[in-house]
Amino acid sequence: MGGDFAPQATVAGALLALDELDPSHTIQLVGRTAVITETLETLLRDPEYAPFAAQRDRLSTVEAPDVIEMTDKPGTAIRGKPNSSMLVGLKLQADGKSDAFVSAGNTGAQMAASMVVLKLHAGVSRPAIVTIFPTARQPIVFLDSGANVDCGADELVQFAKLGSVYAEDMLGRANPAVGLLSIGEEPEKGNAVTKEAHQLLQKAGLNFVGNVEGRDLPKGASDAGPLDVVVCDGFVGNVVLKFYEAIGPFIIGLLAKAGLDQKTMMGALRNLDYSEHGGAPLLGVNGISIISHGKSSPRAIKNAIKVAVRAIDSHMDEHIGRRLQQAAVRPAGVESNGDAA
Amino acid sequence: MGGDFAPQATVAGALLALDELDPSHTIQLVGRTAVITETLETLLRDPEYAPFAAQRDRLSTVEAPDVIEMTDKPGTAIRGKPNSSMLVGLKLQADGKSDAFVSAGNTGAQMAASMVVLKLHAGVSRPAIVTIFPTARQPIVFLDSGANVDCGADELVQFAKLGSVYAEDMLGRANPAVGLLSIGEEPEKGNAVTKEAHQLLQKAGLNFVGNVEGRDLPKGASDAGPLDVVVCDGFVGNVVLKFYEAIGPFIIGLLAKAGLDQKTMMGALRNLDYSEHGGAPLLGVNGISIISHGKSSPRAIKNAIKVAVRAIDSHMDEHIGRRLQQAAVRPAGVESNGDAA
Repeated sequence: MGGDFAPQATVAGALLALDELDPSHTIQLVGRTAVITETLETLLRDPEYAPFAAQRDRLSTVEAPDVIEMTDKPGTAIRGKPNSSMLVGLKLQADGKSDAFVSAGNTGAQMAASMVVLKLHAGVSRPAIVTIFPTARQPIVFLDSGANVDCGADELVQFAKLGSVYAEDMLGRANPAVGLLSIGEEPEKGNAVTKEAHQLLQKAGLNFVGNVEGRDLPKGASDAGPLDVVVCDGFVGNVVLKFYEAIGPFIIGLLAKAGLDQKTMMGALRNLDYSEHGGAPLLGVNGISIISHGKSSPRAIKNAIKVAVRAIDSHMDEHIGRRLQQAAVRPAGVESNGDAA
Repeated sequence: MGGDFAPQATVAGALLALDELDPSHTIQLVGRTAVITETLETLLRDPEYAPFAAQRDRLSTVEAPDVIEMTDKPGTAIRGKPNSSMLVGLKLQADGKSDAFVSAGNTGAQMAASMVVLKLHAGVSRPAIVTIFPTARQPIVFLDSGANVDCGADELVQFAKLGSVYAEDMLGRANPAVGLLSIGEEPEKGNAVTKEAHQLLQKAGLNFVGNVEGRDLPKGASDAGPLDVVVCDGFVGNVVLKFYEAIGPFIIGLLAKAGLDQKTMMGALRNLDYSEHGGAPLLGVNGISIISHGKSSPRAIKNAIKVAVRAIDSHMDEHIGRRLQQAAVRPAGVESNGDAA
């Protein structure tokens, strides 16, 4: 029920996903079942979605009468709307009735509800939101995208570990190269938290390649080589991502004024739109919770569902639990250059 | 003597600037005078610069045998190289022998030397570097660009005041609209420092229009309307600016792959290169110190010199002193909606 175009975009996205997924996968649509069923019927009469009628048997509905609005405060939404699609959907997973949860609803509420219902992995103090950041080379795992605005150095290290497992399991990167977003390559460049995190990351058992700068992000590489994971706090992460979101249209506007064809340009830049790449997983919770953009299209929802399935199939959650647990018990100061697993 | 292409670019930029400035202005070239004079002679034999021979009488040289390297640490450079072009050049201003200082040398050293030689205005605890940020609308005054990585809320308020005077005097904006870079429009969105700064800015006697987000930067406007000044700490500012620097070429690369003409695109995006807009003034010091990019072209140096002259002509420095002094003595908690001057 969440998202600017719900439930149409969500239900349509589920149909598109089932069409592409292994037949063993099924989807439970959680919310006001009468509305969902009607939406599904209407969609299947639409020539665009009629071909997906065969997927109907793999869709079921779960009743959740409350709806969390985009403007609701996370805390009050969770306490005041226990029968919302958000909470009912996450509880399915906690109860072993589902393997992952995908939503385009209120991000703050999804984060809080995921923490309450799924709990955090040992060794994680705050969950982080991952964004897959398109670059001139391979996409990079960028976190935190806005879940944590005031981070300590320890939390940046946790993000680095979460992002490393994500890069391995979800993007198939071996021994992922982790960079710390700062304002200069040298370890002594940065704010107080970044400088401390740099020191901690050197002995965190990760493939830490040092500080990276804003200019390295579009390149997907620093002077130390290609990057797989870039870590920063959620304040910087959110500012950079929202800036990124707006800069493509701005540049296209400038180029269109110079007489270049707008449609060609929009097509060429389409894969810059990270929201189309599917949802942003909330990493650190004990389970799978995929956060989709409020303005998600059916295609974006489909991609978010596929992200969830990849997370299930790769046992990412289990790997995160193991990696963070080891980190939590490893004596401080023990250096390791290889993978800790 | 500072900058990647010094002294050629610096001397050439001075010639270009004199050609465009009012004849009353003169420039003192500070550094190894033998090298400077030889560079000048060579340039004037070049067909590109020969037409500027008439400007030669408005150029003089001041001997400064030491050179601060781009890799020197600010503290050691200042203490160990008192006869560098940086320190000698700034002292001319402190001694009343010049009105402004422009350099493309070591940024950290210029910042530290400016603070030592020119001192700070009362009411300023740290100087800030301004960048003129090109947007889809009018350019905005963006600060801090990297001078201060760990800022308190008070310092963000100082930056807002410095930026406001800059927008008035240098860009001719009346009652400049000041935004605070954060991760949501609501006052309660942001990290701890930003939230506190939001409250302080509401009673700072400025035209504070609230929080702005990363996506508002390319637009030059938030939902509250057009922006003149955007304030953030130097860590976020530096990350955003370096990202901005790299994103244009990245997008051009993507579009070129789609078959669009690279040269046309580079031309269209040329005014996105803020380093070509001239130097970044170091605001808050008692005087005028313009920081140019190390890779400044003669055109960038020329523009930096013109920025310096505009600062002189508008009495910006005097206005900053007055604005900050008033702020420093105004009783805390007194609200004011208009300009404090």
